[in-house]
Amino acid sequence: MGDAERMKRVARRIVDRANEGNRCVVVVSAMGDTTDDLIDLSKQICDGVPPAREMDMLLTTGEQVSIALLSMAIHSLGKEAVSYTGWQAGMNTDSSHGRARITEIRPERIFRSLDEGKIVIVAGFQGLSDTGEITTLGRGGSDTTAVALAAAIQADLCEIYTDVDGVYSTDPRVVKNARKLQEISYDEMLELANLGAAVLHPRAVEYAKHYQVALVVRSSFNQNQGTFVKEEAVMEQGIVVRGIAYDKNVARVSILGVAEKPGQLAKVFKALADAGINVDIIVQSGITDGRADFSFTLTLDDLDRAMKVIEQIRGEVEFREATSEANLVKVSIVGAGMVSNPGVAAQMFEVISGLGISIKMVSTSEIKVSCVIENARLAEVVQALHTAYGLDTNEQAFVGGPSVRR
Amino acid sequence: MGDAERMKRVARRIVDRANEGNRCVVVVSAMGDTTDDLIDLSKQICDGVPPAREMDMLLTTGEQVSIALLSMAIHSLGKEAVSYTGWQAGMNTDSSHGRARITEIRPERIFRSLDEGKIVIVAGFQGLSDTGEITTLGRGGSDTTAVALAAAIQADLCEIYTDVDGVYSTDPRVVKNARKLQEISYDEMLELANLGAAVLHPRAVEYAKHYQVALVVRSSFNQNQGTFVKEEAVMEQGIVVRGIAYDKNVARVSILGVAEKPGQLAKVFKALADAGINVDIIVQSGITDGRADFSFTLTLDDLDRAMKVIEQIRGEVEFREATSEANLVKVSIVGAGMVSNPGVAAQMFEVISGLGISIKMVSTSEIKVSCVIENARLAEVVQALHTAYGLDTNEQAFVGGPSVRR
Repeated sequence: MGDAERMKRVARRIVDRANEGNRCVVVVSAMGDTTDDLIDLSKQICDGVPPAREMDMLLTTGEQVSIALLSMAIHSLGKEAVSYTGWQAGMNTDSSHGRARITEIRPERIFRSLDEGKIVIVAGFQGLSDTGEITTLGRGGSDTTAVALAAAIQADLCEIYTDVDGVYSTDPRVVKNARKLQEISYDEMLELANLGAAVLHPRAVEYAKHYQVALVVRSSFNQNQGTFVKEEAVMEQGIVVRGIAYDKNVARVSILGVAEKPGQLAKVFKALADAGINVDIIVQSGITDGRADFSFTLTLDDLDRAMKVIEQIRGEVEFREATSEANLVKVSIVGAGMVSNPGVAAQMFEVISGLGISIKMVSTSEIKVSCVIENARLAEVVQALHTAYGLDTNEQAFVGGPSVRR
Repeated sequence: MGDAERMKRVARRIVDRANEGNRCVVVVSAMGDTTDDLIDLSKQICDGVPPAREMDMLLTTGEQVSIALLSMAIHSLGKEAVSYTGWQAGMNTDSSHGRARITEIRPERIFRSLDEGKIVIVAGFQGLSDTGEITTLGRGGSDTTAVALAAAIQADLCEIYTDVDGVYSTDPRVVKNARKLQEISYDEMLELANLGAAVLHPRAVEYAKHYQVALVVRSSFNQNQGTFVKEEAVMEQGIVVRGIAYDKNVARVSILGVAEKPGQLAKVFKALADAGINVDIIVQSGITDGRADFSFTLTLDDLDRAMKVIEQIRGEVEFREATSEANLVKVSIVGAGMVSNPGVAAQMFEVISGLGISIKMVSTSEIKVSCVIENARLAEVVQALHTAYGLDTNEQAFVGGPSVRR
């Protein structure tokens, strides 16, 4: 949500949707910089970490302002609308302030208002714990609210409005031929979302997959069709890779000469987890003379802390040395079709090697292959892969199949 | 509430209060310009009058921000605090959005938190209707919340923090010898509040009187003692007038030669009431030749509309002419002691006449005498009355009596 003008434009759009005969429930987030401004205020007041409960009390006002204003804007256009906070909309959560999970949705009031012919506006990101406390859902909260509500009211379609046209085959800032995808499966979207194509929060995608909510991601700035996210996206002819994602914020740690005793690896990763450090790809090489080397990737920001943690456990874990490497990127190809196309990964390695770039680590899932490489060559690699997998063509050549129901 | 610094100062003060051994419930209003800013936002969105329900949804965020921040500020000082919105605090109201009346207070959560040793911060001005809607109490809402809550939890004392030191014998901007009163009765405070000494909203005073809540009005900027408002303020020796108030925004309408037929006056005042015009003092002069003259005062802003209404009912009401006079003020002396001192009103007329000023209208109640005069001489009259009733002395000479219980 932006300023008043943007609010009015959104209202216009919702009214158009309603006039097409749709019963509309709209989930909104806070306007523009509201949340950041509130966080700044709390920092002016509080030297340390403010109590999470009070932070939720504070931040939820941002969405409450949005729903009231949007409802007013719709009224101005001559349609009836009613705004609901999280607790009014029946969004029940657990008590984990700042990162609450939805436990149940009781949409009675929403249904009643829809039956009265009203457009319903619901505050995203917030809920009510069973002890009557205001909670927030944390990151991806507004997307998750929208998807969860869509599931609860069995909506035909959940439209996610964002500032981009939809989900792209790769980052358009890196590859100028990047194309907007017409469709993508939940799993593919999850891989892309987790890989940093920050259009939709992974949590919302998981929710949508679990409850089979038909999603579309589209721009609030134009009328373009957007990207549909659904169970089985139509397979494109000959195209097994749907998109290419990358993560620039990657570092590698190698622990060399680890004594081959039970539980050595577990101790390392437990110590890292206790320090709140997430590890991504883990690779163990073969054992020589009873000693193994292994490497893992992590977020660059955590690298220094991780190295300290490893030095601290030298007593418990027997190893020769720990080394690290920053300035890496992870490039991934994603596509549900690759599960039945064994040559896809090999093609990726060939493309990268063909550029004279060495692959430092590899990780694969059923619908994804990721390679860690030096970050200096990122753009070149993404462009080459985009071309190699036939993603440069302007139009997606669908085999056919029905479009998603509305 | 002002900015972050003010919030911290208020927190410091509350913590001091708690450290004295008090169980504290604090009612807060929105910070600084928050409410005005939100109203501006709504005007940017909405051309006409926004729906009252949505306006309440919008405006209640102002207090919600305050309670969260104040609670954080108290936590920063090492004390436990918990903030509650109106609905969480059990403030139940009717459904009149924008001007809801409190129907019931269910302070269970407040008591529970107090029992846990926490300072309780409650959002003023807001409540919950029995249909689960967020409401606001309208003008004087935060004062009223404080007093009503004090009554519901049977608080020993309700302190109202404002930007002045307390209630003054008259406006210190007009009379330099104006003194802060140590005590005042509910009735006196009501008269002063209604007369525009805008320290405490009349509604809050009425509530306090009804539930016998011991009030004190004091400054949030200093530690001065403030003014106690209670059932029977201690009588000052020889002083029957507690304070002098004035209202600058007064106009007079006279309807001359009204035919002496039943219901003529009723028709006039019904028509004015239907137009939403409040009438204050009404004076009818004697009847001559079956025709009467009468005059009334009203707010200057309503004068033009009132004259139009009167012309419109010329068919129904028989009168010779209607005249009006703007640029008037109403000066009032207020004191519970005057009920047993019949000479008080006469002294007022003498003082005003002695200055060569004509009294245009008079109205009296048991504890008040009001005179309408031309506004040019206001300061002179208030000063003369202040001196005449012995209010210039620096200290109030109390007969004695206990101070209010804490």
